Amino acid sequence: MQLSKPVLRPPFNITRASHVVLTVADLAASRRFYEEVIGLLLTTEADGTLYYRGIEEACHHSLVLQRATGTPACRRIGMRMLSEDDLADAFAFFEQQGCAPAWVEIPFQGRTLHVTDPTGTPLEFCAHMPVEARQITSFASHRGGCAQRIDHYQIHVPQVPRALEFYSRMGFRLSEYIVTDDDQLRGVFLQRKGNPHDIVFFHGAGPRLHHVAFFTPEGQHLLKACDVAGSLGYGRGVERGPGRHGPGHAMFVYFRDPDGHRIELFNTHYQAIDIENEPVRWSVGDPNVSFPWGLPAQRRWFEETTPFEGVAVREPEPEPAPLTLERFLAEQAERK
Amino acid sequence: MQLSKPVLRPPFNITRASHVVLTVADLAASRRFYEEVIGLLLTTEADGTLYYRGIEEACHHSLVLQRATGTPACRRIGMRMLSEDDLADAFAFFEQQGCAPAWVEIPFQGRTLHVTDPTGTPLEFCAHMPVEARQITSFASHRGGCAQRIDHYQIHVPQVPRALEFYSRMGFRLSEYIVTDDDQLRGVFLQRKGNPHDIVFFHGAGPRLHHVAFFTPEGQHLLKACDVAGSLGYGRGVERGPGRHGPGHAMFVYFRDPDGHRIELFNTHYQAIDIENEPVRWSVGDPNVSFPWGLPAQRRWFEETTPFEGVAVREPEPEPAPLTLERFLAEQAERK
Amino acid sequence: MQLSKPVLRPPFNITRASHVVLTVADLAASRRFYEEVIGLLLTTEADGTLYYRGIEEACHHSLVLQRATGTPACRRIGMRMLSEDDLADAFAFFEQQGCAPAWVEIPFQGRTLHVTDPTGTPLEFCAHMPVEARQITSFASHRGGCAQRIDHYQIHVPQVPRALEFYSRMGFRLSEYIVTDDDQLRGVFLQRKGNPHDIVFFHGAGPRLHHVAFFTPEGQHLLKACDVAGSLGYGRGVERGPGRHGPGHAMFVYFRDPDGHRIELFNTHYQAIDIENEPVRWSVGDPNVSFPWGLPAQRRWFEETTPFEGVAVREPEPEPAPLTLERFLAEQAERK
Amino acid sequence: MQLSKPVLRPPFNITRASHVVLTVADLAASRRFYEEVIGLLLTTEADGTLYYRGIEEACHHSLVLQRATGTPACRRIGMRMLSEDDLADAFAFFEQQGCAPAWVEIPFQGRTLHVTDPTGTPLEFCAHMPVEARQITSFASHRGGCAQRIDHYQIHVPQVPRALEFYSRMGFRLSEYIVTDDDQLRGVFLQRKGNPHDIVFFHGAGPRLHHVAFFTPEGQHLLKACDVAGSLGYGRGVERGPGRHGPGHAMFVYFRDPDGHRIELFNTHYQAIDIENEPVRWSVGDPNVSFPWGLPAQRRWFEETTPFEGVAVREPEPEPAPLTLERFLAEQAERK
Repeated sequence: MQLSKPVLRPPFNITRASHVVLTVADLAASRRFYEEVIGLLLTTEADGTLYYRGIEEACHHSLVLQRATGTPACRRIGMRMLSEDDLADAFAFFEQQGCAPAWVEIPFQGRTLHVTDPTGTPLEFCAHMPVEARQITSFASHRGGCAQRIDHYQIHVPQVPRALEFYSRMGFRLSEYIVTDDDQLRGVFLQRKGNPHDIVFFHGAGPRLHHVAFFTPEGQHLLKACDVAGSLGYGRGVERGPGRHGPGHAMFVYFRDPDGHRIELFNTHYQAIDIENEPVRWSVGDPNVSFPWGLPAQRRWFEETTPFEGVAVREPEPEPAPLTLERFLAEQAERK
Repeated sequence: MQLSKPVLRPPFNITRASHVVLTVADLAASRRFYEEVIGLLLTTEADGTLYYRGIEEACHHSLVLQRATGTPACRRIGMRMLSEDDLADAFAFFEQQGCAPAWVEIPFQGRTLHVTDPTGTPLEFCAHMPVEARQITSFASHRGGCAQRIDHYQIHVPQVPRALEFYSRMGFRLSEYIVTDDDQLRGVFLQRKGNPHDIVFFHGAGPRLHHVAFFTPEGQHLLKACDVAGSLGYGRGVERGPGRHGPGHAMFVYFRDPDGHRIELFNTHYQAIDIENEPVRWSVGDPNVSFPWGLPAQRRWFEETTPFEGVAVREPEPEPAPLTLERFLAEQAERK
Repeated sequence: MQLSKPVLRPPFNITRASHVVLTVADLAASRRFYEEVIGLLLTTEADGTLYYRGIEEACHHSLVLQRATGTPACRRIGMRMLSEDDLADAFAFFEQQGCAPAWVEIPFQGRTLHVTDPTGTPLEFCAHMPVEARQITSFASHRGGCAQRIDHYQIHVPQVPRALEFYSRMGFRLSEYIVTDDDQLRGVFLQRKGNPHDIVFFHGAGPRLHHVAFFTPEGQHLLKACDVAGSLGYGRGVERGPGRHGPGHAMFVYFRDPDGHRIELFNTHYQAIDIENEPVRWSVGDPNVSFPWGLPAQRRWFEETTPFEGVAVREPEPEPAPLTLERFLAEQAERK
Repeated sequence: MQLSKPVLRPPFNITRASHVVLTVADLAASRRFYEEVIGLLLTTEADGTLYYRGIEEACHHSLVLQRATGTPACRRIGMRMLSEDDLADAFAFFEQQGCAPAWVEIPFQGRTLHVTDPTGTPLEFCAHMPVEARQITSFASHRGGCAQRIDHYQIHVPQVPRALEFYSRMGFRLSEYIVTDDDQLRGVFLQRKGNPHDIVFFHGAGPRLHHVAFFTPEGQHLLKACDVAGSLGYGRGVERGPGRHGPGHAMFVYFRDPDGHRIELFNTHYQAIDIENEPVRWSVGDPNVSFPWGLPAQRRWFEETTPFEGVAVREPEPEPAPLTLERFLAEQAERK
């Protein structure tokens, strides 16, 4: 199987996953969940929009919640570039790729570039935000899971290889991947910031947002977030975990927010910088992929996602030996 | 509903849950599990028997594993008495109750009293064991879940009220209990040592041993035990949790040992000493009884138990509105 | 050396350390410290008095702060009895001992008995308090060190053997003790509730209160209390630790409150119930008594204490080879 | 005060602190300390040399211990480059700077470049090492502090501004710094890998190595490392902490190894990627620089260091208002 090689000197410098924009029905309900359970800090509330950041983050926002009616959706996935020069270089690149880049004005961000990637995922890039004080040592004000910073997104797309190819050209490195027995890619973990993932693509109808993940300092904070969730009536929203991932090795918990958006808290990253580290290969049939220990995820964890606003969802194209949800669940059930 | 009042000056002084005797097929397999995952310390191996204690325990054993063929079973549930005088007083009491007490010689225990309680559960009592050095500060040798000491047993019996009545006369206090809407007792948590439980009885065919519980110092040790279990191939044996109990408030994980015996690790006890504290009442329909957060237990957690060796199992007697497993699982499934 | 044997059936049943009454200059300053750093819960504020309890405690109070001018002092050390009958039996005992017992009325306590023990320490006993809801699972409201419950007191007295003798007659068991090379007692750890200490006596001018200790669930809560203290300007009040005790094995931190009263947070208790466990002997010259690891305590930790209000302090009587603070500090300094 | 601006496109790509080479007297003594207390993994032992790596590291070594007689010393500080091309570009750069670069052969490393920086610190650079399996999920084999990966070095040098200037030209970014009241630089925290430090320079006679720091996942691992150290007889080697740093915000403990080399374990990093984040300024007189809470460091923490083998030590040059150790200690003592 031929996987893309890392591009050592990419055409522009994307530095990290930056922020996500979600629509929600009730800002007050969202505030209670994100502040008490997840432990994010409200930077600003303006024009029906809440801007949140993690307790260590000096950027203005990593989670943007916008009040809207209709099906809750994701409006944009954001990435940071190092400098304005990188943004300019990226515009040229995306234009050449036929991605229809556009400059836009976004509150509390520097010059911002909108692009739709070949999987249909709506992206935005910027190189600046207003600087806020890090609250990492404001210990008396930390709440719930103490979400420290945004880490990565997981997106379902019908053609994982196309995503891998495009993001590799932008300089993303493949850290881990999951394949079927006949070498069909089922998942790719891609990164820029030197640990396992900034963005993850999984095989499925898409593009759809599966979850946004925030890094949390310790295992105890995952347990605390669960306990706070349980004590405030969000117990049913603890959808999966605490458990341990195979790929990436992190301990995790998945929550559903009041609008059904899925938030992962996790910890225990490893560093992924040296270029001699080959991507880690996982077989989709390996039970350690999902469940080194702990209960299998509930069916809704596999099935339910957040749509991208205004973006059509395409089914995966036919392939020799498709992994169906039924087969996957059946295999897991047998194993347990 | 009339619940037994605590007997302030009981006829003899039972001090605590003491030890359990289980049969196993393969001592080497048991050793690996109990030493690496649960973190118990081997005090002695003699005559096809392993004697284990927790890292803080100064007593010779709290878990006894005896090699045997056939269905793995529990031979005895052990309780400690304060003194030899208490043992003698107990003998008289049990004789009067028709429990057929008998003095027996047991290795590594002082004079030992065998009794079968009215639920059919085989008990043994002693007031002395050889004293071993506590290993609580031998930090370099602690393993897995760092099981600190034995805490309690859970037994399924067809008549919970009879168990409550008999153990109350022996001086056990009721700390928490679970009832149906029409006030049928479904579970009682009984204690002598000043925290929520030394022995727990639940409604069901019995007597059968549901689990033995060891106290572990911190939430991190529950996670560590799961991680060690997963990394050594016992991942499937992590049967339920990590999660948070309603009654007793503890964080817990349930493991199945290589013979299928169920071991609970838990932490976060509260003190229960003052007599003005009324027993805590839980409704069996309250979702917080089992799952303030986290996934419902798997079916096998409800169904599978360890038999008492040579003890017949009786079904619960008919009652107006029985809680069936099917109804319980169905209710839980609806809730999730 | 002849140490008292445990009295298996004492004249009355003291169950545990219960509460302490301290005077403070500024209730608002005390509130901020005890609620944010220590994590106690305010049950009631009435008549210039704050009544606090730990997050698991169902009793009305374990710490009572009374506004007063003058040198901050301790008014009473409180112990619980099991029942009213025990209180009555105790009255007779203390009268016979010449301790001048007196019945008093105290808000939020049942009938209360005042006594001065032979060391001059003012005690009070009661068997009842109003019952409050345990807040152990109100996770969103837990603060700082999450103090769970009161555990013990440490008192300096000029004649440790006299304290040991008197408390043993009341049914306290000696769990650990510290002696000089010529077998002079320097410290005794005495308990009723089944773990290492309810009250500790150390050799020195007295009676004076060295500290009150609250149990906290995990090592992380000790670190959190320090971090909150540092972030709120109480950093200088972190007087000793985090460190590990020799006797009792607990991990600890000592704080000074705004009036200079010393509060210990600690965890990692062991159970001490079986009567065959001999008291643990420590030599005062053993460096592991105080410092298995970590920096030596500051001089003020040895020298500064809280006086008992209106109680004269006596110097220790002469003895063959006195342990002076200077000698002790010099020995420690050499070792480091 | 004029601080260097980050060089966005440096002449070559140094990616991270990589490894340190120390001499030790007794390999067996070193093994016990580094494996049991610090928790490093031995990759290879060859020719009187131990090669260690952290539990997550896929590189062959991050700590190299070489048996030698005489004063224990540091032979080299290692940095990683991204690629062989970067190494070649660096050679040219260092030649131009008069740093006398030299290609050398080092076991278990790709082509290696030796350089002495303007402060006299002996550096080595490579772009490749043999790849080893990460052991981050081999939970049953983790020991002591579970050191996860190397993070940074601290070096004392007589001219901090010269170090800042040279490392900035190599692409290091200044994350935090400490200055006197008259703006003399006392400490600079420099980084390449996106968190606060790969190398730190402090003002003092030098060049001398103050410590090497390993990242550890959680606060509990710092406590565990202390407990293991205490239980194995290394208690005196717990030189400072657990405590919380001002700059960098990390929780830390400093250990002295059997040869006196100082090892820091710490956790709680923040991400430092966005270029709009200005370096954080600290005043040397601010008590929160060193001690937001906890005891002041012992004198030996300030005075004792590891020499670089064969490198002469120069005293700091005269300056208007020198910070002497005596003044610093005196100020700290007053504060406590």
